[in-house]
Amino acid sequence: MSKFLKVKTAQQVLALLSEIRPLPSETIPLERARGRTVASDIRAPEAVPHFFRATMDGFAVRAADTFGASENLPALLTTAGEVLMGECAKAPLVPGTAVAVATGGMLPEGANAVVMIEYTQPAGSGVIEVTRPVAPGENLLAPGDDIRMDEKLFERGRLLGPRDIGVLASLGITEIEVFRRPRVALISTGDEIVPVQTHPLPPGKVRDINTFALAAHMEAAGAEIGLRATVPDRLEELVSACLDALPGHDMIVLSGGSSVGTRDYTIKTLERLPDSKLLVHGVAIRPGKPVILGLSGEKVFWGLPGQPVSALITCRVFVAPSLDRLQGRCEAGLRTDGFGTFQAILDRRLPSVHGRTDFIPVTVSIGEDRVVRAVPIFGKSGAISILARADGYVIVPEHAEGYDRGDEVTVHPFV
Amino acid sequence: MSKFLKVKTAQQVLALLSEIRPLPSETIPLERARGRTVASDIRAPEAVPHFFRATMDGFAVRAADTFGASENLPALLTTAGEVLMGECAKAPLVPGTAVAVATGGMLPEGANAVVMIEYTQPAGSGVIEVTRPVAPGENLLAPGDDIRMDEKLFERGRLLGPRDIGVLASLGITEIEVFRRPRVALISTGDEIVPVQTHPLPPGKVRDINTFALAAHMEAAGAEIGLRATVPDRLEELVSACLDALPGHDMIVLSGGSSVGTRDYTIKTLERLPDSKLLVHGVAIRPGKPVILGLSGEKVFWGLPGQPVSALITCRVFVAPSLDRLQGRCEAGLRTDGFGTFQAILDRRLPSVHGRTDFIPVTVSIGEDRVVRAVPIFGKSGAISILARADGYVIVPEHAEGYDRGDEVTVHPFV
Repeated sequence: MSKFLKVKTAQQVLALLSEIRPLPSETIPLERARGRTVASDIRAPEAVPHFFRATMDGFAVRAADTFGASENLPALLTTAGEVLMGECAKAPLVPGTAVAVATGGMLPEGANAVVMIEYTQPAGSGVIEVTRPVAPGENLLAPGDDIRMDEKLFERGRLLGPRDIGVLASLGITEIEVFRRPRVALISTGDEIVPVQTHPLPPGKVRDINTFALAAHMEAAGAEIGLRATVPDRLEELVSACLDALPGHDMIVLSGGSSVGTRDYTIKTLERLPDSKLLVHGVAIRPGKPVILGLSGEKVFWGLPGQPVSALITCRVFVAPSLDRLQGRCEAGLRTDGFGTFQAILDRRLPSVHGRTDFIPVTVSIGEDRVVRAVPIFGKSGAISILARADGYVIVPEHAEGYDRGDEVTVHPFV
Repeated sequence: MSKFLKVKTAQQVLALLSEIRPLPSETIPLERARGRTVASDIRAPEAVPHFFRATMDGFAVRAADTFGASENLPALLTTAGEVLMGECAKAPLVPGTAVAVATGGMLPEGANAVVMIEYTQPAGSGVIEVTRPVAPGENLLAPGDDIRMDEKLFERGRLLGPRDIGVLASLGITEIEVFRRPRVALISTGDEIVPVQTHPLPPGKVRDINTFALAAHMEAAGAEIGLRATVPDRLEELVSACLDALPGHDMIVLSGGSSVGTRDYTIKTLERLPDSKLLVHGVAIRPGKPVILGLSGEKVFWGLPGQPVSALITCRVFVAPSLDRLQGRCEAGLRTDGFGTFQAILDRRLPSVHGRTDFIPVTVSIGEDRVVRAVPIFGKSGAISILARADGYVIVPEHAEGYDRGDEVTVHPFV
């Protein structure tokens, strides 16, 4: 397995994610379905509405009784009571009569249109004048007009939002089959890494940033974080931590170190896991070249750079889409089509290298002129203050040689 | 209090939200800080880095020892061991010597630059050749170069994301003072509304969509949902439900009905709450005109239309910003500046009325030509299928008379 693999492009890595299979499904209550992904197509178990419903305040009538009505020659109809909101009409509509109904109310049998209240006026002794004709079907929803019985509502792969939850509630669907959330183990390694609680910080040491920042990012992408651990940068300890984590997790993310030695450990750790397969060993991007992707059976194994800015960007660019795959989310959803990004004017030249994809952190500002500007942050390598200052990043693609100051660029905001 | 109030514009309503005060703060562990808002400015308790740190793999040197070095005339330096990652340098750097160091490693005392490994080569018997000079400070971070001690990191009002959590972890800040999450009571009313579990649905009735769709939306906006109830459309029952909800909640959202009578009940319910104040009674928007905003002491009271599309749009446009206020989020944050929206070409004419702000649900599609198109959905009033089909909405502002087909418009995606 460990034969040398060529460095891949970012696009090739994303294409390889199709090797990741969605997790099994589970059934959950509707109240907890936001952000979950539908595991099997959902069809409407009933029609909506399931009765003839008024869409305007007015009078339920037989349309034919209003034909020819005008301001000068109104149609005269006898009022025959009212349908109260939420109640059934008590009797069928008798020709030549009109029954008062409010928006959302049920029409009596025999009524086939609603005259808006604006086009009626009382004419004394239980009679109204109708000053405009209505066509059959006007100002009402017939059964199934909104949703047909057995209509496909949501396809497998749909990420459920508040609107969808409203639609499901309207149909009385209170339990949903969704893909299980991926459970992720986060392991930080590196001889310089100490737990975050360490006070004071010894010289030469750095606190463990990545399990915190990556956990927050992955939770936003739908993951549940299980293990969070700092493990010494020694092969046996890394292998043992990963073997322990495998049974209870769907993904292991190992971040840490940037030396050649450590990268070897990541690969060697993967090799020691059962049924392992190396998919990616290095990506032609900056930052983040030493990204590793493998599988242990169906479990996903990522090796990310230890440097926090690189770890967060590679997490967003590669790990988040792999979480989408595990959750069975549609590949062609809004997320991957660039929504959520926005355009800005580049405030500085961005040189790049042909054949490599660059991810440049930027600060975004809006001037008095309302122009959105993206200012690249060229902090010294390893500066964590970049994390605090970057609003997002700009991608300089593989086959571009950079952007000029004043170019319009797409900003990918950080979560 | 109940004197007639003029219908307000959407902008006027948003301006009135400044009357809402942030909730008290609480201290929470860093692991749970994502999506929370900083309640008091956070300053760096220490400098980052707190030691002289290499930003490149190479050799720690005294810069002066490399001055004048070139390919033809390299500087010769004696190697004096290595600083291991995460370890302290054992001894100060002796002039004329070089100590191997990796990226992130600590420099020995007396070193003031790092020569990249690419510009060195072994010259036998513990000597290296340096083929390029380095300036003092090159390829290193001095203490405080990244973050100065006592530097202001995050201001009160900052919404914490994964990056921020990384920065706080690096400084060993494991507990954060944030504004409390708003606790919201959701009450649906209307004589036609029945609980979502109702099977079969009696004619004339509709299941309670709003407590589900609004709850999901408000959770996404940071709220915790407490009470969810369907209450009959009678004043005493509404007042009693609201009085019961007040002590345990920060906000009451009452949705339901669209008749004049019901709207009166909403106002009358507000009047019966302690220390009540009516701020808004009607907004010049479509859909959603009968929006009511009030306060009961510091508690926020919203009356929303019962029709689900109107309820969700008014929730997003008005209630979500009020949740931002309760959470103390900066007013001038990214959210309100239109990020997250995107541009699309309108696929159909959108007429409007001067003096009213229209929110038009749209479906978004991307053609083979990669053009993003927004197609307005003109479903019959009250159709809940609009919820399933709408990817977002387009705003036709107060002082515009609509858009033409082919115009570029801003799409506000639904959550």
